[in-house]
Amino acid sequence: MAPALRFELTARDPGCAARCGLMSLPHGEVETPAFLPVGTQGAVKGVTPEQIVATGSPMVLANTYHLTLRPGEDVIAAAGGLNRFMGWERPILTDSGGFQVFSLANLARVDDHGVTFRSHVDGAEVRLSPERSVEIQNALGADVIMAFDECAPHPAPRADVERAVERTRRWAERSLAAHRREHDQAVFAIVQGGVHDDLRERSARGLVALGFPGYAIGGVSVGETPQEMRRAVRVVEPLLPVDKPRYLMGVGDPRDLVDMVILGVDFFDCVMPTRNARNAFLFTSDGIVRIRNHRYERDFGPLDGVCDCYTCGNFSRGYLRHLYHRGEMLGPILGTIHNLRFLQRLTADLRDAIRAGRALEFQREFRRRALFGDPRSDGDDRDGFPRAGAD
Amino acid sequence: MAPALRFELTARDPGCAARCGLMSLPHGEVETPAFLPVGTQGAVKGVTPEQIVATGSPMVLANTYHLTLRPGEDVIAAAGGLNRFMGWERPILTDSGGFQVFSLANLARVDDHGVTFRSHVDGAEVRLSPERSVEIQNALGADVIMAFDECAPHPAPRADVERAVERTRRWAERSLAAHRREHDQAVFAIVQGGVHDDLRERSARGLVALGFPGYAIGGVSVGETPQEMRRAVRVVEPLLPVDKPRYLMGVGDPRDLVDMVILGVDFFDCVMPTRNARNAFLFTSDGIVRIRNHRYERDFGPLDGVCDCYTCGNFSRGYLRHLYHRGEMLGPILGTIHNLRFLQRLTADLRDAIRAGRALEFQREFRRRALFGDPRSDGDDRDGFPRAGAD
Repeated sequence: MAPALRFELTARDPGCAARCGLMSLPHGEVETPAFLPVGTQGAVKGVTPEQIVATGSPMVLANTYHLTLRPGEDVIAAAGGLNRFMGWERPILTDSGGFQVFSLANLARVDDHGVTFRSHVDGAEVRLSPERSVEIQNALGADVIMAFDECAPHPAPRADVERAVERTRRWAERSLAAHRREHDQAVFAIVQGGVHDDLRERSARGLVALGFPGYAIGGVSVGETPQEMRRAVRVVEPLLPVDKPRYLMGVGDPRDLVDMVILGVDFFDCVMPTRNARNAFLFTSDGIVRIRNHRYERDFGPLDGVCDCYTCGNFSRGYLRHLYHRGEMLGPILGTIHNLRFLQRLTADLRDAIRAGRALEFQREFRRRALFGDPRSDGDDRDGFPRAGAD
Repeated sequence: MAPALRFELTARDPGCAARCGLMSLPHGEVETPAFLPVGTQGAVKGVTPEQIVATGSPMVLANTYHLTLRPGEDVIAAAGGLNRFMGWERPILTDSGGFQVFSLANLARVDDHGVTFRSHVDGAEVRLSPERSVEIQNALGADVIMAFDECAPHPAPRADVERAVERTRRWAERSLAAHRREHDQAVFAIVQGGVHDDLRERSARGLVALGFPGYAIGGVSVGETPQEMRRAVRVVEPLLPVDKPRYLMGVGDPRDLVDMVILGVDFFDCVMPTRNARNAFLFTSDGIVRIRNHRYERDFGPLDGVCDCYTCGNFSRGYLRHLYHRGEMLGPILGTIHNLRFLQRLTADLRDAIRAGRALEFQREFRRRALFGDPRSDGDDRDGFPRAGAD
C-alpha cells in the first residue's frame, strides 16, 4: 500500500540547514518551504477557496477542536469529508485539538487517558483523548493529521513540561495505534519540551523512535522569546530524520519564518496574516503598513508596488484606508488576500534562494531591512499580536 | 458633442409595457431591464469588483451622501474619480443624497435653498442643495447622476407631498443648470408625488418638460403597499418619453422587479440582495431559503440547483449554514454572490421573455410559484426587510 505522504528533498542549501522539498499528498503536491493559511472552522476568514488558490497557498489548516464542536465531524463526514465540505481541492492538515483544549476550553480534568473540558461554544462537557482525536480526524479526512499532544503553558514549572513530554510520547503512540486511514492520511507527531533543551531532546528522540512520516515542533509561539523559539528549533532539528518533513506550528511572522527555514523547517501555519489583515496591519516589502493611518488618505499608489496580488493590482492605499475606516467587509477581504500572497511570495523567494545556495544571504538582506519590527520598540517586539492559536 | 448617455430600445413586448434597451454610457453598455447592486460607501458589501462582474452586474450605485461625508469627494476626485477609486471599470450611478438626508441624517432645516443636517457619522453640520449635490456628483464622476430631490415621508399630509413635488421640480431645474460634465455624465430627474395620482402626474409632466436624458421614479419602497407602488408606476410611466430610460429607485424584491418591468421600468437598484445575504436570507428558484434553519444541517445539495454562480457551483447548503452559524465572513460573502447572481439571472430571463413577446407569461409563471412571500403571512409581506435605503 502506497503511503499517504511522500517527501522528496529537491535542494539543500550548502550554507545552512535550509532545504527545498516536494510533499506529495492525496490532494496534491506541496512545495516546501510552505506556509499554510488557517481555516479554523473550515473556512479561511474572509476569502473564498478560489481567492486562497490565487494567493498561491498550497494547503490549509483546519482545527479539530472547533470542527468537532460545530458542525461535528459526523456532519462533515456525511458531506464527503472536509475537502468537499469546504470546497477546497488541495491538501488539508488538521491539528489534534490539544493546543485549543489547553488554550481555549474551560479545562476540567487532564489525566493519562485524556482531557475533559467544557466547550467554549455552549459549555457542554466534552472529552478528547488520543483515540478520540484521531477518530475525529479520520472522519474529517485531512491529508495530514496530528497526534494528540499536551502543550504545557509558557512559562510552566519544569516538572509540568516534563510530564507533558512523557504524556505526549505515550499519546503519540496511542494516536498511531488508533489511526484507521494510513492509506490516505499521514499522522505527524508533535515535539514538546518548552524552553528546556534536554526535554526538547528527549521528546524528539522518543517520538522519532516511533517512526512517524513527519514531525511538528509544538509549544512555540506561546509567549517565549524569539531567541527561545530559535533555540528550541535548533536543538530539535538535528534529531529529526532528514528525509521527513518538519512543521513548525503557529509561526507566521515573516522574520521568524525566514529564520526558521534557515534552521531546517519545511512548513508553517499561522493566523497572523489573516488576523493582522482584519486588524488593518498589512505586510509589505517596505514593512508593516498600518493602513488606517491618516498618512494614507491621499496615497493612491498600490499597497505594495512589487506585489502581484489582486489587491495591489486593483486598489490604492487610499481606498483600502477608506474601507477599513468605514467598516466595509471589503477592507479585511482585500487585506487578507494581500497578506496571504505576501507570505506565499516570501516562501517562493526562499525556495529560489535555497536552490541558488544563497539562503543565508537572503536572510541577511531580509534582516538588514529590519522591516517587521515595531518601529516604537526593539526589533523583536511583535506588536502585541497573537502568534498562534485558532483564527 | 456626443451626449453622455445613448439609449436604444431593442425590443418591446406587444402584450404589455415591458421593453428591452441598450444604455450606452462612458464606462460601458447596460442591457435593460437591469439591476444595480448598491455600493453605498464605494464598495458593494462583502464582494470584490471581480466577484460583482462575475454575477453579471452591469453597473452599480453609490451614495453621494455617504461619500461626501467620508472620504470626501475631493479625495475621490484626487484618486481619479469613483471608478478608479473603487477599482470598478463598468458604469456607476450616484444618487443625489436627497433620500439619505431625509432618512438618515439628523435633519435640521429644509428650505427652498437646500437642506441643513447633521452628519450621522460625527454630528458635523452639513448643507446640501441642488448645486452642492451636483458639484459633489461631478467630482465623483459617475456615468449617471441624479438631480437633488425632496422625498416626502410615507405617509405624509398631502400638502407636504405637494410641496415636495414643486420643490423637486425647481431643484431639478437648478441641478441641470449646475451640471458641469454633460459630456460624460447624464443627469436624471426623480419623479415624486407619493401615493397621489395627480401629484405623481404633475411631477412627471413638470420634469419631462425640462428635458432630461432619463427619469427615475422615487419615493417608492418607503413603506407604501405594493399595490400603491404599482399604481404610482402605472400613473407615471405613460407620461415619460418612450425613448428615455426609466429607473425605479430602491426596488429589489424579485416579485416587484418582475411586476415593474411589465409596467415599463428599465432598471432598478436595491440593498435587498446584499443585505438579505448578510442576514442569511437567500433567493432561490424554490423561494427564500433561510439558510440558518436546522433543516439544512445535512443538506449537501447546492443552494439552488439551477443557479450557475460560484456559490452554487462549489458549496452546499449544509456548509453555508455552518458558515452563518459560526459567524464566518465567508457566509455573507457567498450569500451575496448568490443573491446578486439570482437577480442578474432574473433580469436576463426577463430580457429573453420580452424579446420573445412572452413577458406576461413569465410574470404569471413567476407569480404562480408565489415563492417570495413569507409563508407565515400573505404574499405581500416583506418579512420586515428594508426595501430601500443605503447599504
